Amino acid sequence: MEAEFHRWLSQHVPAHPSLPLGLADDAAVLKRSAPPDLVITTDLLSDGVDFRLAEIDPRGAGRKALAVNLSDLAAMAARPVAAFVSLAVPRTGCGIRSRLELAQRLYEGLLPLAREFGVALAGGDTNTHDGPTVISITAIGEVGPRGPLTRSGGRAGDKLLVTGALGGSIGGHHLDFMPRVREALLLMERYELHAGMDVSDGLALDASRLAAASGCGAVIELEKIPIAAAARGLSDPVSNALGDGEDFELLIAAPPEVACMILTDQSLDCGVACIGELTERPDLWYQAPDGSRVPATPIGWQH
Amino acid sequence: MEAEFHRWLSQHVPAHPSLPLGLADDAAVLKRSAPPDLVITTDLLSDGVDFRLAEIDPRGAGRKALAVNLSDLAAMAARPVAAFVSLAVPRTGCGIRSRLELAQRLYEGLLPLAREFGVALAGGDTNTHDGPTVISITAIGEVGPRGPLTRSGGRAGDKLLVTGALGGSIGGHHLDFMPRVREALLLMERYELHAGMDVSDGLALDASRLAAASGCGAVIELEKIPIAAAARGLSDPVSNALGDGEDFELLIAAPPEVACMILTDQSLDCGVACIGELTERPDLWYQAPDGSRVPATPIGWQH
Repeated sequence: MEAEFHRWLSQHVPAHPSLPLGLADDAAVLKRSAPPDLVITTDLLSDGVDFRLAEIDPRGAGRKALAVNLSDLAAMAARPVAAFVSLAVPRTGCGIRSRLELAQRLYEGLLPLAREFGVALAGGDTNTHDGPTVISITAIGEVGPRGPLTRSGGRAGDKLLVTGALGGSIGGHHLDFMPRVREALLLMERYELHAGMDVSDGLALDASRLAAASGCGAVIELEKIPIAAAARGLSDPVSNALGDGEDFELLIAAPPEVACMILTDQSLDCGVACIGELTERPDLWYQAPDGSRVPATPIGWQH
Repeated sequence: MEAEFHRWLSQHVPAHPSLPLGLADDAAVLKRSAPPDLVITTDLLSDGVDFRLAEIDPRGAGRKALAVNLSDLAAMAARPVAAFVSLAVPRTGCGIRSRLELAQRLYEGLLPLAREFGVALAGGDTNTHDGPTVISITAIGEVGPRGPLTRSGGRAGDKLLVTGALGGSIGGHHLDFMPRVREALLLMERYELHAGMDVSDGLALDASRLAAASGCGAVIELEKIPIAAAARGLSDPVSNALGDGEDFELLIAAPPEVACMILTDQSLDCGVACIGELTERPDLWYQAPDGSRVPATPIGWQH
């Protein structure tokens, strides 16, 4: 539904001078009369969709709700400033937990992450309803002197880089991942990046989105994808790395000489690898070690 | 639950230099390196709690979700700038409507209001889940040169003013009310106000909150409360005006000479009336036409 709804939205939500990027990126950029511009993102998570409170400690759900928003700020290379938290908890509580205890546990999960990234928590809105636990967070960040890192700045010939490793996130990484805020700020400050986003819906799908937003195609060199430990034991780890999603790593497009410097410097603790490049020819392609290319279906999490 | 949870929150959410007001007002004020400071508010509405999609057009629910946020900006005398909308719609749709149609109708309800107040809509996040329709909106505004209108600036002797008329909101006003944005900006620009908020949980409860935040008590003169048409035919209209809530009118504290000017000028189309004053003696009191005062229970909507 989301793709069709977004098409409808883009036709019905008017452009606005305060929003130069419109609805097209990981987050909105809010133009301000004085710098720095703000980057604003919002994500809503539901029990049963984004986490299962029957199986995990609610702190993990609260942490994830903030972490995915911080990952969106990282995707724009924005420094986190504040977050606003709205909760709806079931009227009857959740399992053995009262609704008050549930709300407290959700917050206890996100408070340490907010502290770690200097995010001001401004409370928000707390409700009970006859439905599953819902956490909606809006996070606000500031762009640096080089402006936001958008999806649309890539050019044919740019190398595609990813931080960390991909695949098998459902095994636990989707709850305890560390949003790549510091990594994005460091890369943005030291290197001339062209485009970037976070890998939330699967490398194949997200790479095809970044390429399309930049008016390019993309080639992924399958054997170069760093595979996460959680995917290595599975039957087809490369497919997991391409399509699982919720990796919340950074996907960056940079000119070859810049990519070379980034790969040589290796200044990120999480590592960074080159997994392909943007191409003039549109659409997504997979490249084998012998250099042959085949057209690929952008697998991933379609909302 | 909400009061207890807010006590817990205030003990566990650290103070932050970007948030001078903390969690205590209708919205957060975000300090910025350059003026104007931002006012940010978030409200989450659920089907079955804040509206009933079995009974109303979804456009009414979408409109209300934005309107309550704009009312919070009005409560701070902030000019609306942008709003971020997160939706969760039932996986199976709602009644005869598909989930796509439902999402579109919700947006169609809020788009005209956004246009009317010049609010940039930045999309947000759209999800499906196994639960009722949830709309979470975060709205951003800018304070004027006099700063935000807070709850805590009132002083004993200040007159209490309300815009419009109160009571019986459940009859329809809670869906089609006009947020008092223009009225708040006009009052803030022309007069020296001490404190203000919007009447969302009932005049009695909200007046007692404004008084407490200002370190005062409050007296309400019952016969001076403007009664909304929707409450006039009911058995005890004054109780409806005191306790129904969702009026979304402004409650203002201003020094007597300022209040006198506001009442004389009558520059608001919706009208403005004096309904009491702030007192040194704490707590809430009702005053009869003969001047006698009795202690009152702050009735209203306790979340």
